[in-house]
Order: sequence, then C-alpha cells, then structure tokens
Amino acid sequence: MTEPSARVVIVGGGFGGLAAAKALGKAPTQNIVIDRTNHHVFQPLLYQVATSVLGPAQISSPIRSILRKQKNTTVIMGEVTGVDKEQRCVFVNDADREHVPVPYDYLILATGVRHSYFGHNEFEQFAPGLKSLADAVDIRNKILKAFETAEAEEDVSRHRDLLTFILVGAGPTGVELAAALAIFVRTTLRSDFRRIDPTSARIVLLDAAPKVLGSFAPDLSGAAEDRLQKLGVEVRLGHAVEKIDEEGVIAGGERIPSKAVIWTAGVAPSPAGKWLGVETDRAGRVRVQKDLRVPGHPEIFVIGDTASLDQDGKPLPGVAQVAMQQGRYVGKLINRHVAGKTSLKPFRYFDKGNMAVVGKGYAVLQSGKVQMHGLLAWFAWAAIHILYLSQNSLRISVFLQWLWTFFTGQRGSRLIVEKTAEEPGKANTPSATIPPNQTKPELQPTH
Amino acid sequence: MTEPSARVVIVGGGFGGLAAAKALGKAPTQNIVIDRTNHHVFQPLLYQVATSVLGPAQISSPIRSILRKQKNTTVIMGEVTGVDKEQRCVFVNDADREHVPVPYDYLILATGVRHSYFGHNEFEQFAPGLKSLADAVDIRNKILKAFETAEAEEDVSRHRDLLTFILVGAGPTGVELAAALAIFVRTTLRSDFRRIDPTSARIVLLDAAPKVLGSFAPDLSGAAEDRLQKLGVEVRLGHAVEKIDEEGVIAGGERIPSKAVIWTAGVAPSPAGKWLGVETDRAGRVRVQKDLRVPGHPEIFVIGDTASLDQDGKPLPGVAQVAMQQGRYVGKLINRHVAGKTSLKPFRYFDKGNMAVVGKGYAVLQSGKVQMHGLLAWFAWAAIHILYLSQNSLRISVFLQWLWTFFTGQRGSRLIVEKTAEEPGKANTPSATIPPNQTKPELQPTH
Repeated sequence: MTEPSARVVIVGGGFGGLAAAKALGKAPTQNIVIDRTNHHVFQPLLYQVATSVLGPAQISSPIRSILRKQKNTTVIMGEVTGVDKEQRCVFVNDADREHVPVPYDYLILATGVRHSYFGHNEFEQFAPGLKSLADAVDIRNKILKAFETAEAEEDVSRHRDLLTFILVGAGPTGVELAAALAIFVRTTLRSDFRRIDPTSARIVLLDAAPKVLGSFAPDLSGAAEDRLQKLGVEVRLGHAVEKIDEEGVIAGGERIPSKAVIWTAGVAPSPAGKWLGVETDRAGRVRVQKDLRVPGHPEIFVIGDTASLDQDGKPLPGVAQVAMQQGRYVGKLINRHVAGKTSLKPFRYFDKGNMAVVGKGYAVLQSGKVQMHGLLAWFAWAAIHILYLSQNSLRISVFLQWLWTFFTGQRGSRLIVEKTAEEPGKANTPSATIPPNQTKPELQPTH
Repeated sequence: MTEPSARVVIVGGGFGGLAAAKALGKAPTQNIVIDRTNHHVFQPLLYQVATSVLGPAQISSPIRSILRKQKNTTVIMGEVTGVDKEQRCVFVNDADREHVPVPYDYLILATGVRHSYFGHNEFEQFAPGLKSLADAVDIRNKILKAFETAEAEEDVSRHRDLLTFILVGAGPTGVELAAALAIFVRTTLRSDFRRIDPTSARIVLLDAAPKVLGSFAPDLSGAAEDRLQKLGVEVRLGHAVEKIDEEGVIAGGERIPSKAVIWTAGVAPSPAGKWLGVETDRAGRVRVQKDLRVPGHPEIFVIGDTASLDQDGKPLPGVAQVAMQQGRYVGKLINRHVAGKTSLKPFRYFDKGNMAVVGKGYAVLQSGKVQMHGLLAWFAWAAIHILYLSQNSLRISVFLQWLWTFFTGQRGSRLIVEKTAEEPGKANTPSATIPPNQTKPELQPTH
C-alpha cells in the first residue's frame, strides 16, 4: 500500500482534470493541480463570449476557488514543459522560475486540445481559433472592430467586404458562432450605426464536409442547415479552404474578400504524447489502456481530448462528457489503489447524447433514440448548460444575462478592450502635474 | 445663422464628451463623436475592476449604444492625431486608414488625462497606472499573478517579497485600491491557498504629501488614514518615490522589494494643447475662456480634465462633475448659436461635493458644510455610484454584484486572461486532425 502522502499531480484544469481532482477530494493523498491559467473555462459557451453575449467571468471560475474546500489539494498556475518518467516529476514554468521539477507518485495528464490549422499554421494570424478565454476576447475584438471600421469608412462601396465574416469549419463551434453572429447583426446592432446597415453583413460558413454538424444525425444536420439559411447565413459545403491571408479566403477556387475570418475547424491534442515519448494515434493522442493508464506506466494516466481509447471499435469523441467520466474513473481508481483495494473494471463511456444551438430559441439535440430540434431542444440546451456551469454564482449570472438578452436583444459585453498605442505622461513635466487626489466624481446622478 | 447641417465633432467619449453629445441630441446639427475605444468607461469604479470585484463590462457601455436613439449623432472609433484650425478638420487614424480628415463647424475637445510619471516614464513598465479598462485588466492580472507566483514558490522565505504590493500615490485611487486589496486578501482569498497565507500580504501606500486624500477636509483625511491602518495597510506619507524598477521601489532613501507596484499618482492632460498650438497652463491643459471657447477660435471648445479654467481664483479640479457640467454647457451654447440666439452667461461650476470609499462599508464624504465618514457615507457612495452608471443594465448588474460580494466575500472577476506562449496545432499533421464537430458537452449536469 502506498504511504498516505502519495502525491497526485493533475495537469490541466479543464473538465477532465477538475473531475479527477474532485474525485480525490477526500483521498489520503496530496493533490497538485497545475494549469496554465488560473481559471476553469466552460468551453461550450466560449462562442457566447466571442459574440458579446457573456463576459469572460461569466463562463469561468478560478480553479483554486472551485477546489477551495479540498484541503488536500494545491493549485499551481504554471506551464508544464515536460515529464521525466524515470524521476517521476513534471517540469513547470511559472511567472517567476523555469523548468521547476514537481515530483509525483501518480500523474494524470488532462491537457486537452488546441485548434489546429491542418499544418497551415500561417493561417492563424488571419484566422484566430476559439479554445481559450483569450481566444474568445480576440475574436470578439475582431468582430466588433469590423463594424467600427466599416462605420468609419465613408466610401459605401467598401462596406460589403469590410462586413464579410467567414467561419471556417461547420462543426458546433462554427454553426453556433455563425447563428449568434446573424442574430447579433439583426437585433443588438440594428439601430446603432448611421453609415452602415449591420443587417447587410455577409456571414459565410465554410466546410469541406458535405454537411454541417457532421457528428449529428442527418435529419438534424439538415434542420440546422435550413435554420442557418433562414438566419441569412451563407452555408458553403464541400469547399476546402486553400488559402487564408489578409485579403480573405480562397475556397473551392473562389476568393472571398474578408477582414474577419475565424477558424472553427479541427483541433490537435496537447504535446502530452511527446512529453511521455509513448505511442500516439495519427492525431497525436496518447494511446491508453482500458483503465486509462499509459502502457508500462501504471502510475501515469491520460484522460480527455488528449487521450486515445477505442470503445466498440470506434475512438471515443473529444467531448466534455468523456473527459469528465474519465476524470471520475481515474480519481476512483487512485482512491482504491492507495487504500490497497483491487482495481476497477475497465473504463466504459456512457454516451448521454449531443446538442448544438442554432441562434435564438433553436437547438438540435440527440440522445440515444431521441432526436429533437427547435424551441424545446433550445430550452433543454439552456437548462443543461446552466447546470453544467461550475459555480452557483455563474448559474445565476448567466441565467439573468440570457433572460435580459432574450427579451431586450441587448448583449452584455460589447467591449473592445486593448492597449492603445498612445504613451502616457509625455505631455507633462515633473514640476507640473495635476494633484492625483482630484479625480473623483461628485454627488449628483447623471442624466 | 449656421445652416442646419452644421457639423459638430466631439473628441472623447468620457463624462464630458458624452454630456455634450447628449445635450446636442435634438439639435439641428450633424454630430460626430470620436473615441479611441468603442466604450464609455465609468472611471470612478475602475479600481473595482483592478481588484476583481467587477468585470470590465459592468462599468462600461458601447458609446454608440448609449447614443443609439440620437439619429443626428454618428460614433466613430478612431484615434485623433491632430487638428487643422484653418481647414477646420481633425485627423483620425482608424483600424483601416491613417490621418483621415474629418471636417467640423464646431469642435469640442474632451480628451481627458492619462496618468503621468512626473517625467519618469521609465517607471511605467514596472508600475502601471489606472485610467482605462485595459489598464485595469493589466493591474488585475498583476495582482492575481503575485499570489499565484507566491503559491508556486515552495521557498517560504521568498513569500514576503512576492506578496508586497506598493501603491504610489495616496489620492482616491490609491486609497480605494489599497483598501479593496486589504479586504480582498482577508476575505476572498483567505481559504484559497495552501502554501501562502494571503492575509500576510503587505500593502504599502506611499505618497510624498503629508496626508492621504489631499483634496478632502483634514478630519476626513485623518479618518481615512486611521481606517486604512485598521485594515492593515502600511501608510507611508512624506516619502517621495526616487526609483521604481523590477526589484521594487526606493522611497525616502529606503528600498522596498516588490514585484507588484501600481501607479496611482498624478495625471497629465491629453495633447489637445499641442494639436491646437494654443496657450496651456503649466500642467499642459488648454486655457479656455469663461464660455469654454479657445481664445480666437469661437468654433473650438475644450472641456473636462484637459481644459484649464479658474473660478474664484482657483483652477477647477479634474473631476467628472466639472466635465459633465461643461459638456452640458457647451451643448446648450451650440444649440443656441445654431438657432441664432444670443450666447450664454459664462460657465460656472457648481461643486456638489466629493467622496472616496475606504474598504467594505466605509466611505468619506464632504458636500458643502456636510462631512461624513463611515457606513452611512458608504451607503451614499454606493447609491450615487450606481445612479452614475450610464445604463440601467449596468445599474442592475453592479447592484447585484455588490450585494453578492458584500454577503459572500466572493468577487466576480478573478481572472487572469492573457495569450499563452504556446503555439497551437504544432502537434498534428494535415492528414491527422480530429473532426471539428465532436467538441461539445453532453446531456448531464456536472457534480
């Protein structure tokens, strides 16, 4: 039996890592959760941050505040750079130091995926992807700036190109972004401009695949596509993207001019496989045993999007629920192991279903034999996503925001927040500065 | 009489510019509001964004959405680079083009101030100031990262320096930040760390002046200082800052090691005076006539923090209320002028009073003969600041957030949102990407 102070290092504070950490909350272990950021992000709602509905703080919580009650768990903000399987430690860079070794008795890698440019990383500077809060804020800035730039342009002939938005990839992220953008221009922005008509914005959804939402049943893909067209989204399927540059996109031989291209296509796993130097699948995901261990290393587990495991002959999908179920499984397994109990039966994923929202009051949903689309599916989507959030404060905040947006059409976070070029303080001289303590408002309401 | 299509260009969407634009909402003029950002910020609450209480979207609104109902008003996001008084146009850089001339018949410059480093601009990289939302987010990141870095550091002897926060400047911003930080470490962060004790954080408030809140009555300054000391803030007055570098601050000959220095001292006006090439005061503010016009240019007005006007022998303070009253005055004056009516009597500032908050449930307030400090003053502060916000949605959102924070001690926006170094997509090959449309959550609440 391992001594009570066994160190469990969990890399990644996403759905998988957090589920594992929670499952070890009462274990006689010393848990260390390491994440590159200080927060857990509810990725399924990132598209709502990118489209100004929700603010970053409404879909994320500090990992250490989620785990504050687990006195056996320490949270470290840092970037893991590698693993030493023999010395049993991971190497971490933090704000202050580099390559700090953090020893483990058990290691859980839950490092997820990033968006992938199919080997064309040069696309990234023109077509940002959507995986982190910083990504979402970048895309929000890009979208809002396109309208600002067009409004500043008095030459009407340039408005069409300036207001062309291209989404590359018709999976859930692309579909949800396209629909949210279509609603945005028709409601929120409708009466905010003088020189441009926001409703004339062109929203193009591109994919090389023959249908949208490829992982859904054909009927639901069809319904989603119809809905997108009703919303005015230009759906172009079977068009492979050949080039993305500052002028726009070339797809199916045709150039579409655009200053606002967003990448919603494939994802690639974290370098966990490289750190471990073990066998990966063609996508680069670590091949794990049925108990989620790395072959030959019973102390190392890989879970979630960065793990590769087949079930009934098919690879498990890269969805939140797989990561969460795997996290709970590994937590339970380590609990049993440190208690000297026999191991668990192999991990088995229980598929609860799949859903995507297509604009205001419309979603597609499939669960087992059940297939739904429309308003009822949207209510189910809204309810489940609110339940999914990590803390009650977020549930309340998102629920109120959605109510308000649903009925007023206004969105909560239409901000472009960026450093400006301007250099402060240049205008003044040492002797000539206005006293600091005269910069407050006074006793009178604005009107 | 000017023809109905007179163009009024307003530079700056702060308290002054917005007040002027609103006052011209029904005028037979064509108004153009130009701001570097897309939003109006409620600056008095920036310190709450810097200390994670409120999110950026809770204290700001898109300028064009505030003015959406004014069909005679166009809002442009762009940076003004100069003014041609003879040709009567301002020059604007936007995301797309540079130095675009925007003609005016009337010009209102309400370009405000930035923080100033007393000629030591080299301080800025180590001690960011607090004037914009981007500044507030930078400072929030700096504060939160200090705790993350200390928690990652297993060498206890380094914790004290890593957890030393220095605020340079004991005006309202410095006092409010110091107090909010003191409450933050004692409540919100209390139980979130394992290796460090957040309550041991050292918060130092420095100023060369002999008292805090110099613009307040001596009794209130004293009360505020006592309150700060009760909260554990180290108040060091009469210490001029000699140096700020990556190691910390040198003040009064003594070095205080710190990785988290924040600049809350003086401000310097915008370059409006340079653009116009007219007389400024020693601080660089444009000297205006009693009707806020620039001498010799009846079509150019300068208002708010970047204007210099004496009243009863004293220069008007750089506060929101002066800017708002001046904005309304200029709007009214232009209304009368285009209507061919006689001009107005000189501008006169009506001082409603002044207030600052010193932590949870405590504020100092003076208005005419009235002086208050304590809980009642804090309620007045809270009520007035909520009324001050630009839109009802913000009033509701801030009110709920404050209620929640007051009773739970939790804060709404404890996020470090930054681009990470990591390059996406490197791990994969063109042929080997996981299908994009398998990245959604499923039908099951988390627990």
